[in-house]
Amino acid sequence: MSSNPSTTSVIPAPPEPVLAVLDPVTGPRLAALETPILRADEAAATRGDGAFESMHVRGQSAWLLEAHLKRLAHSAAALSLTLPPRDALEQLVLTAIEGWQERSDAEAGVKLVCARGPEYAPELGPTAYALAFGVSDTLIRRRRTGVAVASLSFGYPAAERAQAPWLLGGCKTLSYAGNMTALRHATAAGFDDALLISADGYVLEGATSTVVWTPNPGVLCTVPIDTGILPSITAEYLFEHAPELGLKPFRQLIRLPELLAADGVWLCSSVRGIIEVTSIDGCPTRRSPLTPRLTALLGFQRNAAQCV
Amino acid sequence: MSSNPSTTSVIPAPPEPVLAVLDPVTGPRLAALETPILRADEAAATRGDGAFESMHVRGQSAWLLEAHLKRLAHSAAALSLTLPPRDALEQLVLTAIEGWQERSDAEAGVKLVCARGPEYAPELGPTAYALAFGVSDTLIRRRRTGVAVASLSFGYPAAERAQAPWLLGGCKTLSYAGNMTALRHATAAGFDDALLISADGYVLEGATSTVVWTPNPGVLCTVPIDTGILPSITAEYLFEHAPELGLKPFRQLIRLPELLAADGVWLCSSVRGIIEVTSIDGCPTRRSPLTPRLTALLGFQRNAAQCV
Repeated sequence: MSSNPSTTSVIPAPPEPVLAVLDPVTGPRLAALETPILRADEAAATRGDGAFESMHVRGQSAWLLEAHLKRLAHSAAALSLTLPPRDALEQLVLTAIEGWQERSDAEAGVKLVCARGPEYAPELGPTAYALAFGVSDTLIRRRRTGVAVASLSFGYPAAERAQAPWLLGGCKTLSYAGNMTALRHATAAGFDDALLISADGYVLEGATSTVVWTPNPGVLCTVPIDTGILPSITAEYLFEHAPELGLKPFRQLIRLPELLAADGVWLCSSVRGIIEVTSIDGCPTRRSPLTPRLTALLGFQRNAAQCV
Repeated sequence: MSSNPSTTSVIPAPPEPVLAVLDPVTGPRLAALETPILRADEAAATRGDGAFESMHVRGQSAWLLEAHLKRLAHSAAALSLTLPPRDALEQLVLTAIEGWQERSDAEAGVKLVCARGPEYAPELGPTAYALAFGVSDTLIRRRRTGVAVASLSFGYPAAERAQAPWLLGGCKTLSYAGNMTALRHATAAGFDDALLISADGYVLEGATSTVVWTPNPGVLCTVPIDTGILPSITAEYLFEHAPELGLKPFRQLIRLPELLAADGVWLCSSVRGIIEVTSIDGCPTRRSPLTPRLTALLGFQRNAAQCV
């Protein structure tokens, strides 16, 4: 296996993740990643018909696991997808993490995938598995360097998805080709990440992250969830703890020119933590002295010693 | 295996499809559907990151196979996805069809799936397989009975996707959860199918089909492809052959009230053929005498004898 980025993967992959699969009868167990586990008619593969969560590994568990399981349940409900029992999913995640930690002490994330299962064998029920993976060097480095982002239209007007639940606003589904393509378009143009903008000009979210900003000292903002953005567990955690840094949390719509004028702009998510945006479409954003404190608030480190 | 519809599948599944997989070295071969072929980190499953085509089986091949392979190549290019060689894909489709026809003489379709492959083993290259499947009784029956459709917002303004290629307008990707959810919302409300409407009120397409209509006798219309709808191979075939029925083909934007006033409205796709829309949101549409002739033009039959 090569550790180099392929031409199509945006973030280089560290060595092999650890796979845990959920057997409906015997429960979770480790399995070889090399051995196929999904049938050709698995709805995850033929229709992106399922949901997932990505979490940061902390100690012997996943950070904010409870909130992630709750969001997964919300995504599944929107898809009319029956999930395995909550406790089985928790054990599945812990099994993957334990398997990873037996092999490596490197910083890790864990991805939990739940899908509708094989189309032609509904008696097999839904599919569930977890992959514990090493956090990429690129991502760790960006916690220090920040990212240059490109703004791209996300197509939807900001108010549209609140009226149309079948558009799956707020859901973390496996139908992620659009997000990945936006990311590829941004990186092909020399940017690090993509910032998705509504058809009517409002900032929505990153391709795989949530945008937060300080419009002025003392206030920490993010986008209202009725725009259909993914309700960020990391941003929610930041909001709960923002008062510890003297910041008042606030949700509001913002346009690009206002975002460019903010005191600080960041992308956050469970595995990346919080990464400063250094420019948007080539226009520099203001660097904020808050970055190290926000990073520490989330329990991430950004010192060079961590970077391989 | 039950042949009853599960609560989550919209069209009941006929017996087991026949699977053909593409080995990059030895070429296509039949494989047991029961045996998993996809790794847990397959991008098709974790990100809906791939493209597909569904075709109607005619004789020992797929109807309009060349056009489908061309559209697949277009979808793949939009995803920056490298496809296996064209001839290997053709052989893969033919292998699945041959396998089906050795087992059954029932009307069949064939689905060709191409995806990015395992995220952590890029050296394995893209994944490709074909599933030959029996056309469902429900679908065959609807060719005679027509369908009652519900209109649902598709979120995008009609002109938006032409400006934003990363939104994958015109691409048949595996990220299909939105389409399937729209279909589930429609069926849960007692309708047969969903008709997707742009955020600015224009008719776009069916959840898994293309809409065509006769605004008045002598004209056959469908939606302009710069709206980001899937460029329909079936509608294109209809357009080429429409003059044989004295119909002049035309592409234009249309709103729901105008569609309701049309002389005839249909949903078409490669496997369903052409199915008349009998009502939209409960308002009856005009029944057209053209339905049998359009069905025959596409080479489908709609007599009851075909229906089990």
